[in-house]
Amino acid sequence: MAEAKKAKVAKAEKAMKLADPKEATIDVASQQMIVRAQELGVDTVFDRAVNMKPCSIGAQGICCKNCSMGPCRLPLPKGGIEGKDTRKSLCGATPNTIAARNFIRMIAGGASAHSDHGRGVAEVFLAAARKETDAYQIKDTVKLKALAPTLGVATTVEVDGETQDRDIYEIAVEVGEAALNEWGKPEGELLNLKRAPEALYEKWKKLGVLPRNIDREIVEIMHRTHIGVDQDYKNLMKQGTRAAIADGWGGSMLATDLQDVLFGTPFPIQSEANLGVMKEDHVNLILHGHEPILSEIVVSVAQSQEMIDYAKTKGAKGIQLSGICCTANELLQRHGIPTAATFLQQELAIITGACDAMVVDIQCIMENIANVAECFHTKIITTHPIARMEEQSVLHIEFDEHHAVEDAKRIVKIAIDNFENRNREVMIPSQKATQIAGFGVESIQYHLGGTFRGSYYTLNDNIINGRIRGIAGVVGCNNARTKHNDGHVRVVKELIKNDVIVLTTGCNAIACAMEGLLTPEAAAVHCGPGLAEVCETVGIPPVLHLGSCVDNSRILLAATEVVKAGGLGHDICDLPVAGSAPEWMSEKAISIGHYFVASGVYTVFGVTLPTSGAPVFHDYLCKQFEGLTGGMWDLEIDPIKHAQKMIAHIDKKRKELGIDKARERVLMDMADRQALEA
Amino acid sequence: MAEAKKAKVAKAEKAMKLADPKEATIDVASQQMIVRAQELGVDTVFDRAVNMKPCSIGAQGICCKNCSMGPCRLPLPKGGIEGKDTRKSLCGATPNTIAARNFIRMIAGGASAHSDHGRGVAEVFLAAARKETDAYQIKDTVKLKALAPTLGVATTVEVDGETQDRDIYEIAVEVGEAALNEWGKPEGELLNLKRAPEALYEKWKKLGVLPRNIDREIVEIMHRTHIGVDQDYKNLMKQGTRAAIADGWGGSMLATDLQDVLFGTPFPIQSEANLGVMKEDHVNLILHGHEPILSEIVVSVAQSQEMIDYAKTKGAKGIQLSGICCTANELLQRHGIPTAATFLQQELAIITGACDAMVVDIQCIMENIANVAECFHTKIITTHPIARMEEQSVLHIEFDEHHAVEDAKRIVKIAIDNFENRNREVMIPSQKATQIAGFGVESIQYHLGGTFRGSYYTLNDNIINGRIRGIAGVVGCNNARTKHNDGHVRVVKELIKNDVIVLTTGCNAIACAMEGLLTPEAAAVHCGPGLAEVCETVGIPPVLHLGSCVDNSRILLAATEVVKAGGLGHDICDLPVAGSAPEWMSEKAISIGHYFVASGVYTVFGVTLPTSGAPVFHDYLCKQFEGLTGGMWDLEIDPIKHAQKMIAHIDKKRKELGIDKARERVLMDMADRQALEA
Repeated sequence: MAEAKKAKVAKAEKAMKLADPKEATIDVASQQMIVRAQELGVDTVFDRAVNMKPCSIGAQGICCKNCSMGPCRLPLPKGGIEGKDTRKSLCGATPNTIAARNFIRMIAGGASAHSDHGRGVAEVFLAAARKETDAYQIKDTVKLKALAPTLGVATTVEVDGETQDRDIYEIAVEVGEAALNEWGKPEGELLNLKRAPEALYEKWKKLGVLPRNIDREIVEIMHRTHIGVDQDYKNLMKQGTRAAIADGWGGSMLATDLQDVLFGTPFPIQSEANLGVMKEDHVNLILHGHEPILSEIVVSVAQSQEMIDYAKTKGAKGIQLSGICCTANELLQRHGIPTAATFLQQELAIITGACDAMVVDIQCIMENIANVAECFHTKIITTHPIARMEEQSVLHIEFDEHHAVEDAKRIVKIAIDNFENRNREVMIPSQKATQIAGFGVESIQYHLGGTFRGSYYTLNDNIINGRIRGIAGVVGCNNARTKHNDGHVRVVKELIKNDVIVLTTGCNAIACAMEGLLTPEAAAVHCGPGLAEVCETVGIPPVLHLGSCVDNSRILLAATEVVKAGGLGHDICDLPVAGSAPEWMSEKAISIGHYFVASGVYTVFGVTLPTSGAPVFHDYLCKQFEGLTGGMWDLEIDPIKHAQKMIAHIDKKRKELGIDKARERVLMDMADRQALEA
Repeated sequence: MAEAKKAKVAKAEKAMKLADPKEATIDVASQQMIVRAQELGVDTVFDRAVNMKPCSIGAQGICCKNCSMGPCRLPLPKGGIEGKDTRKSLCGATPNTIAARNFIRMIAGGASAHSDHGRGVAEVFLAAARKETDAYQIKDTVKLKALAPTLGVATTVEVDGETQDRDIYEIAVEVGEAALNEWGKPEGELLNLKRAPEALYEKWKKLGVLPRNIDREIVEIMHRTHIGVDQDYKNLMKQGTRAAIADGWGGSMLATDLQDVLFGTPFPIQSEANLGVMKEDHVNLILHGHEPILSEIVVSVAQSQEMIDYAKTKGAKGIQLSGICCTANELLQRHGIPTAATFLQQELAIITGACDAMVVDIQCIMENIANVAECFHTKIITTHPIARMEEQSVLHIEFDEHHAVEDAKRIVKIAIDNFENRNREVMIPSQKATQIAGFGVESIQYHLGGTFRGSYYTLNDNIINGRIRGIAGVVGCNNARTKHNDGHVRVVKELIKNDVIVLTTGCNAIACAMEGLLTPEAAAVHCGPGLAEVCETVGIPPVLHLGSCVDNSRILLAATEVVKAGGLGHDICDLPVAGSAPEWMSEKAISIGHYFVASGVYTVFGVTLPTSGAPVFHDYLCKQFEGLTGGMWDLEIDPIKHAQKMIAHIDKKRKELGIDKARERVLMDMADRQALEA
């Protein structure tokens, strides 16, 4: 970087207000790196958040820019609305119409991201099944066989009256084709819907929200929200529901399933989290984004002796891989690769001065990492055809499953070659925490049920007897509009303190990991007595890391298993469960939130909801929706109140189930049984 | 309507500023009705436009609300940009990234609207082909047979070594299935792409923008524009191009083709246009929206003796059908049903007090018609499951192809029954103009080539000899931000004055009709001598009405026919043609604009472009794009300059073709030929 340019940038930065590190984040490592960035005159998202306010009308959901007569803005009148709300846009759209349009376009954005990811996996899966690539194999044949019938694929064949197992790759080709077909088939409905509890499936059918395929529901959102199409917020939300279901039970679930078959179903594994996982004397190669397609191969290449030896020739002691965002979660749950950073820390990882390359694929990549990298030696490498960066300094190495290993080698070598180009003092914070990750539907079954009779029975039993008060899914992003990780950690701590076991994914999982909550030892420190006892007996953390954001589909299936195990009602909405995204930011979070609501889960978001400017619509989502699917939205910014609202819902469900008073399970003898029947 | 409510509304209206009718529209009928509305205290879009300004940052394309850290707004610095443009959002997105994201999401909205319409037609087509409904038949078997091979369907079969024609309905089933498959097929590319000139197809292939199916390209836009995915405006636009091609050559073209087969390919037909087509002593049933699926059946029912007799029992002299927006264009081109109004006049049709029912389907329906109707006796009837209205007063009669006639009867009866409920003085303006509509690829061929050798040869010949300077496609919406119809009429008049023949669709066609430009007689009054001569010789108007907005695909195919007829280059971008949307408003217009640009057409928009806040991106669309597809965008608000820019482009192309000097065709004798060869 030329000195003149540096001076210019430094001057521009000076005009900016600087973030107060202690207001910006609860994480000490991040606080240190924000200070460091400010010393170096490099702006980060924390500073930018202080300097640019969000548009308040847009944030309330009442700005419509869906035609060029607008953007029309319908601010709430000062002093609120008296009598009839007469606000309308040029075409006459009401605040409800506008907020609903915006809301379901967010669902379209989120659902498209997850399911496009899933489609990419399905394509690689099919290439692997057809043996068009050496880089990928069908790894988890047990899961493949479990999955096949859900997609209408037989795992056995009758030969001369005898049942024989079919060839694994033959099954895999049909599974891949059937899966890929789910995105665009012209008739029928999504096959995975039948994996939901029967009561839920029937509810969806009655509401008319069974998705026909994945893409069509997203496209129909775009059509309905076009000027002059759907102008009834209830009808708009109906399509939002349909598309969200197509995400959770469709694209996301297929992504998770096929990834597990390709790369192995996760099983509990120990690792570490936070910027302190980076090593000054190693080549630091950071993998950032969401798809494991590329990063799985990079891991295997970077761990090869050839590459380690090459790194040593450049003066490094080895290659330290680490992850950011959901790529981190994917690599963690299957390989124990440490987690470097949450979404909001991605710039900070570069500011350590020790990041030799940051390889990105898709989603949640800040464009500004290119600017930050320009102030250091770091190479930013984009790899996906649909996600490039405008900045000239960014390298683009387009990754293709047909020459995956070659691409990965090229990338790893760039990182190694760049080790000796470090041009600023390295400052890696010391903070890192131990974490256990890799939980899932299968491992929960194993842990709670044992080897021989793996089942959710024990979990249900502990819920019924009250040791576990309920289950919370706490997930989602970070958001520079709130204190980094503060909401995540406080909500989760309040829940486990009240005996609510937490299933976590995404950046919430990373935040919990950094706080040490993903260890069995956390139970004794942070949990109520009931949950602590269960965790200690079984040897699990009170917060179970279920993976990446597409892996929220694991939570849907875990909840379904709980329903199936019996004793807690017949539908997900009967269960003492609640969902939460304390620091959400992305459209994906809205899609996830809504597929939880559509599946019967009370779901609380922090930060803000883009509905506050349309009170009738807001009320529809937060109250009336319960009458449709059993789930509903809520907004609560204060983390303790946020958790308490979830607990109140869990208690409501316990009461409805008649398990609101703690009961021990009693082994009855014959006399007891006779007394019962009398 | 209760008196108290009336008073309240009247009070609210009083607080509004009123539009100046003469500033609002050039159309005298509309001016009268705006005055009438203001007298009655009913607000219209013209008044609302005066009272609500568009958000200037949003209008410039530099507001990003794709995540909840925003909306981030990046206004241009006062005094413009000196040196490097350092504006960035919280994530670091530049104005280029943001404007490109917004722009291609508009393409996604528009493409989804057109192609979802097409999908609906394909579904009805298939139901008709499978004989699941009596209401629809395969009407145009000639077009069916012409279409079949483009979708890979054979029209003949070999039986015992002899070639026999296949059964029409057998062909139709396969055509319907093949068409429906285009929306979501998992592999391959759109079949219609091969109908483009070969040079254009090869260009698309080289650019990597051949659409794989229709829905996927729209979904991928939503994914790429999600936070942290694509952050390179060129790469974003690449996907925008792909989706726009999937609209123009995919969803829209399929919609047009299948509609023609189902309802008949249009052929020139005479009718009238403007509010004056409504009749005080008739039941006025107005059909508004875009799909002919419903309105075709309503027309046949309303024209039945049973219904006419029933209307007479209610004191009406008959039933006057008329149309608004593209439903008007569909019914006009196939049945000569008169056109009542453009997009901006939809409220005014109700304010006549004589609209007994307004039946709407999808797209460009103002939600405010419900409010206006509440001040009159008018029934608003929504009919499509994806397009309802929040307002309680609106009736919803869900239309289904399986009981189409019953639905249509119910609708027509509601209109008739409502005739005697007229509760205000009727005031229908007297203005209406004669129009000839119903042109298309086939009829242009016939008109210019004659019965025996229908061909584009004559057209090409007249372009080469300079009588016709070039061809313009002038299309698109109205926009309350500009004077209604002023841009449409002035641009078109300037073009034909300069011997440029105009192909028109959508609200531009309606505006031209109202101005009397869609008559052969207009040639003598408004055209330059060359075009006037051609029009008079052939007996066509100088402005040819090609139908609705999805029928812009007819312009693509007409241009392709011109290329094929020879003598004017090898690709659409070689032709002396230009596109225009002087008063565009909808996302559909952006998708249409971009599929014209992607097909090689210089395309000028009026009003505004949501790119002005991102000068680099704007420049990319308006200048650099020509190097990619041969087409490019432009913005020109002044109608005369707008037309002159198109003419300048046409002249540039004429020069490149070497036909910039007018030449008469010379019949050569042998001596001349020998002289040439010497």
